[in-house]
Amino acid sequence: MSTNGRMMLVCQGRGVDSPPVWFMRQAGRYMEEYRRLRERHSMLELCRTPELAAEVTLQPIERFDLDAAIIFADILLPLEAMGVPFHFAKGEGPVLERPIREPADVERLDTVGAEERLSFVYDAIRLVRERLDAGIALIGFAGAPFTVASYMIEGGHSRHFAKTKLFMYEQTQAWHLLMTALSDVTLRYLERQVKAGAQVVQLFDSWVGALGRHDYREYVMPHSARILQGLQNTAVPTIHFGTGTGSILDLMKQAGGTVTGVDWRVDLTDVWKLLGDTTVLQGNLDPVVLLGSRDTVKRAVTRVLEQGRGRPHIFNLGHGILPETQPENVEAAIEQVRTWSKTHERI
Amino acid sequence: MSTNGRMMLVCQGRGVDSPPVWFMRQAGRYMEEYRRLRERHSMLELCRTPELAAEVTLQPIERFDLDAAIIFADILLPLEAMGVPFHFAKGEGPVLERPIREPADVERLDTVGAEERLSFVYDAIRLVRERLDAGIALIGFAGAPFTVASYMIEGGHSRHFAKTKLFMYEQTQAWHLLMTALSDVTLRYLERQVKAGAQVVQLFDSWVGALGRHDYREYVMPHSARILQGLQNTAVPTIHFGTGTGSILDLMKQAGGTVTGVDWRVDLTDVWKLLGDTTVLQGNLDPVVLLGSRDTVKRAVTRVLEQGRGRPHIFNLGHGILPETQPENVEAAIEQVRTWSKTHERI
Repeated sequence: MSTNGRMMLVCQGRGVDSPPVWFMRQAGRYMEEYRRLRERHSMLELCRTPELAAEVTLQPIERFDLDAAIIFADILLPLEAMGVPFHFAKGEGPVLERPIREPADVERLDTVGAEERLSFVYDAIRLVRERLDAGIALIGFAGAPFTVASYMIEGGHSRHFAKTKLFMYEQTQAWHLLMTALSDVTLRYLERQVKAGAQVVQLFDSWVGALGRHDYREYVMPHSARILQGLQNTAVPTIHFGTGTGSILDLMKQAGGTVTGVDWRVDLTDVWKLLGDTTVLQGNLDPVVLLGSRDTVKRAVTRVLEQGRGRPHIFNLGHGILPETQPENVEAAIEQVRTWSKTHERI
Repeated sequence: MSTNGRMMLVCQGRGVDSPPVWFMRQAGRYMEEYRRLRERHSMLELCRTPELAAEVTLQPIERFDLDAAIIFADILLPLEAMGVPFHFAKGEGPVLERPIREPADVERLDTVGAEERLSFVYDAIRLVRERLDAGIALIGFAGAPFTVASYMIEGGHSRHFAKTKLFMYEQTQAWHLLMTALSDVTLRYLERQVKAGAQVVQLFDSWVGALGRHDYREYVMPHSARILQGLQNTAVPTIHFGTGTGSILDLMKQAGGTVTGVDWRVDLTDVWKLLGDTTVLQGNLDPVVLLGSRDTVKRAVTRVLEQGRGRPHIFNLGHGILPETQPENVEAAIEQVRTWSKTHERI
């Protein structure tokens, strides 16, 4: 297992010839190869069958010049392992059959050994690692406690996170129990991913930008910190990601993470000013850009690269690839990163 | 028409015994009085009938100890006046019958004299002003060009604003034409509202937080600035509002506005550090708080008040009142502002 690919080097704060590139949801519906598999298998079937999950993980690697693969999985997989069933409703995203409504629902969670019931993820990681070029990093991941808790309480996607926030404010003890349970399971789950061969892990707190600073500090930060600080024992770099997080980035960095993931709402240069020049940042192309013309892609990619110039930067989107994206645009974005890097010194 | 109520004084940077209080969407579905009127009239009927719009505007004033009334209207009303029809679909929000798809659609807009076709709004303002206590300010408003353009291009609510952003990036000339048309109409529309008796006007750029700094500066800022700077001739204070704007607040202030409106994602104290201590800020209670218990309301209101202490602050939500809100909680929030103010010196 090599550690000298661009992704690993940048995570270690070392220089590279070009920023490493990967994309959140780089394996997914925008690829014909993926859609073909989905005709025969549900999303969850793909996740639960190591051979298929490995195949999906590698699809974008075979097609594009990427520096990292991210294991194909879903942030809600641990729910089922904790006795909280869910399914994906067409066009609606995840639907939980029994959302958490009261403290008793939290106590009923089956957290002991939950990570053992996710062995299909570790098996998929092992398969991918065997087949992956040494220079390409394999990223494991999990949902962060807040984002996962929000699905558990809302029962699915949410616009205002009202039930989640009220649970936080008014069932505070049960909230912290839930967050502790989730962070325990998540830490063990990520440790097992690392043991299976994940060389970097990303914690997705995708919806945490819905919170103000007080709420983040009080109800979320200690739990995310336990996971990220716990992972320090594994010695793999961690990526701490969220969207709409401009106002809490300093707190997120304080919570932990070798790398801070940001969306397009912030300027990378401002974030370095706030968090310090040696912070490794990941991001932050607007996924909408990849729905545009070749020219739109090139211009926007260049703007991100110019901001990242001379600093520790992992090129990525600010959120996942949108399903309507043309694969040719993903290719054009990567090509632009490589071309630009050849003609611009890193410092 | 008095100018010595709390709202007007704070807008002029002067001291008051308690921060002025009003709430975005303070007239609306959460009030039984409003729902009763809606049984007999559609939303647009209420807007277009000055007597009814005035009645709805005054409903929360009669019930609560508020410092300002905001005229009952919708940010999309000017669309119809420009020849762009829309309706409200049940549970879906506005639906435009012919969204803007190409530059020719922009050229077809009927902007000349559009503000004349909105005289029912001015009539409603006149009626409200006649009936309103002198100490209570009457706020007029309009949607900001970006937010209105996003509805015109997306055809309704949007999650990613993909069509809007691509129009911006790839039909740039038509985009600026559209934004110029919208800012022309909006400026004249707000000037007419002031002439009719609005003492403050708010520009709602509710969805502008979807943009990064580059896009805001390039595609939006000059147009919002034209409106806000144009309004300086009227001498009424202006409120420049958006949500999720933590990363562009300095640019929004630069664009203009006597008052900057912010949501709960930012700490007021941080915003004053960024924009200067004399900036008048409006906000920023999370509307979800008003769905909670009396105790939740009091605690969260107090936190906002403590941050606002000794600075020019208008107490409001970070976005509109949610329809499920209990009126008793609105009352509790206002009461907490008054009680707290009695026991805490302003400086």
